[in-house]
Amino acid sequence: MHGVAELPLLPECLPYLAGRTVVVGLSGGRDSVALLLALHRHGCSLRACHVHHGIRGAAADEDAAFCQNLCTRLEIPFEEHRVCVPQLAEQSGESLETAARRARHEILAACAARCAGHTVALAHHADDQAETVLFRLARGSAGLRGMLPVRQDETTTWLRPLLGANRAQITAWLQAQGQDWREDATNAVPDAARNRIRLEVLPALARALERDVVPVLNRSARLQQETLAALDAALSMMPLTDPQGRLFLPGVEKLPGPLRKAAVARFLRAACVPDLTEEHVLAVLAILPADAPAARVNLPGGFSACRREKRLVVRNAAADPVPVPW
Amino acid sequence: MHGVAELPLLPECLPYLAGRTVVVGLSGGRDSVALLLALHRHGCSLRACHVHHGIRGAAADEDAAFCQNLCTRLEIPFEEHRVCVPQLAEQSGESLETAARRARHEILAACAARCAGHTVALAHHADDQAETVLFRLARGSAGLRGMLPVRQDETTTWLRPLLGANRAQITAWLQAQGQDWREDATNAVPDAARNRIRLEVLPALARALERDVVPVLNRSARLQQETLAALDAALSMMPLTDPQGRLFLPGVEKLPGPLRKAAVARFLRAACVPDLTEEHVLAVLAILPADAPAARVNLPGGFSACRREKRLVVRNAAADPVPVPW
Repeated sequence: MHGVAELPLLPECLPYLAGRTVVVGLSGGRDSVALLLALHRHGCSLRACHVHHGIRGAAADEDAAFCQNLCTRLEIPFEEHRVCVPQLAEQSGESLETAARRARHEILAACAARCAGHTVALAHHADDQAETVLFRLARGSAGLRGMLPVRQDETTTWLRPLLGANRAQITAWLQAQGQDWREDATNAVPDAARNRIRLEVLPALARALERDVVPVLNRSARLQQETLAALDAALSMMPLTDPQGRLFLPGVEKLPGPLRKAAVARFLRAACVPDLTEEHVLAVLAILPADAPAARVNLPGGFSACRREKRLVVRNAAADPVPVPW
Repeated sequence: MHGVAELPLLPECLPYLAGRTVVVGLSGGRDSVALLLALHRHGCSLRACHVHHGIRGAAADEDAAFCQNLCTRLEIPFEEHRVCVPQLAEQSGESLETAARRARHEILAACAARCAGHTVALAHHADDQAETVLFRLARGSAGLRGMLPVRQDETTTWLRPLLGANRAQITAWLQAQGQDWREDATNAVPDAARNRIRLEVLPALARALERDVVPVLNRSARLQQETLAALDAALSMMPLTDPQGRLFLPGVEKLPGPLRKAAVARFLRAACVPDLTEEHVLAVLAILPADAPAARVNLPGGFSACRREKRLVVRNAAADPVPVPW
């Protein structure tokens, strides 16, 4: 490793890499091998978790063996999990991509909980981020913020320490230290739309602007993350809920239009309403005025929002106690 | 016009289309012809303004004659302005595109001021907006908000009433009423990067996602406009400036990081500092702490920011009275 620059780990991730065991999703592909090695060199306490998707036959078995050998050499605890993605997809009616992603997500979260660190590191890098920004933009997702360096859900902290490095840097770094990887090992079933974004759209955009657009798209994602964080912080400073956590409507009604919409969206997200779209937020905004024709609106996941005495209440029918028949 | 749907005018623009004379920048091309006709049918008081760029020779003269004839038929006051864009570009050192845009902008604003409406309508539509979003995204502009339907600067209100319609709709609408246009008349010198975005990047993105991405990119721009408007409204409600309009630092220092950065950026924009970049905002943030090594930083356009007794002051050296030599 003489003369080779270390692979940069994103500063935002560093506080989460110390004092706990971090789970790495290790496919055997270049990116996850680089992540494992970089975190190992950083001195992290690690556990590698390989998910065998039950597709790609013998090649997948060799991926698993490669990961096992790498971890033995580095003295990193290793576990392998087998799922049958085609069967999962058939059962749930999801696409192979979605079923694989969900299975992997659940296995990694469970592994992180078992080793008590509740922290998973993922190997996404700057090129992945650029693809994600374009992908989400073209699919109409509200946020162009891309993937977050640190994201916390109810059970797990998800880290992406390699977001500051690009594919070429990662390749050069691995080659410089003679570390190989499994060429076709992918975390997921290849996604046709994402592949076309990588192979056609990003190069076309780079030709149009005559520049490398990956750093620019990463910067856009970061600025968007900052804008959303600033708006969230501003809303959190406003006294818009009552002590019972219900949205206090006289306060909300005083806000200018865009801020009122943002406040309602934030309130619904905080209530854990899933799959929230702009249409849901607009439907809730429509019931806020005291003279609105309706005072209640259904939301996804069994949730509903209801105006009641100058408050907005969100309830989940599924979570409510079932009324006992009389 | 029997059976032909009216071309939709953006609702946000409607309040600005009544009770005043609106200036239309009329190149003779499809989009500006459609705009003029649509506003005429809407009952607006109009004045058409054609800018002859001094390039494209006889074809440009025919564009001007076409515009004159159209306005005579519709009984809309018409004026033509001649500039020599190559000469302007040489004098200013700008590109042809930039020089043409600036000249047109100044002529339209002056025309709008003369007819006292101070309002200009521009013919950008949904396809232009999609291109703009990708263009700015790939150039690293902070905002993905695209073009605003209504924008006010010091002297003029700029409207884009056709942002809700796409190119195909505009073409079909003009054809349905037998209105022709000048095929190659463009408002500007063609921009190579923009052309490649239109002809290569947008089609590649549509193929990758297997959908029409123009509405999606327009929706992204609108949501981004709303997010920025919400953040701006939230900051405007915070008491961060003193009665003299200086940024009050003890208030700013209490804000969480992303909100503090947004507050400083907003303050600098309000002070009309031109060509503001993220680097400038970071440089100003760095002088805010009382123990910072510097208390003053230079900004573009002869501006500087200075920390002075718990206040941030922005000054413009050019605008300050020159000290008389003693």
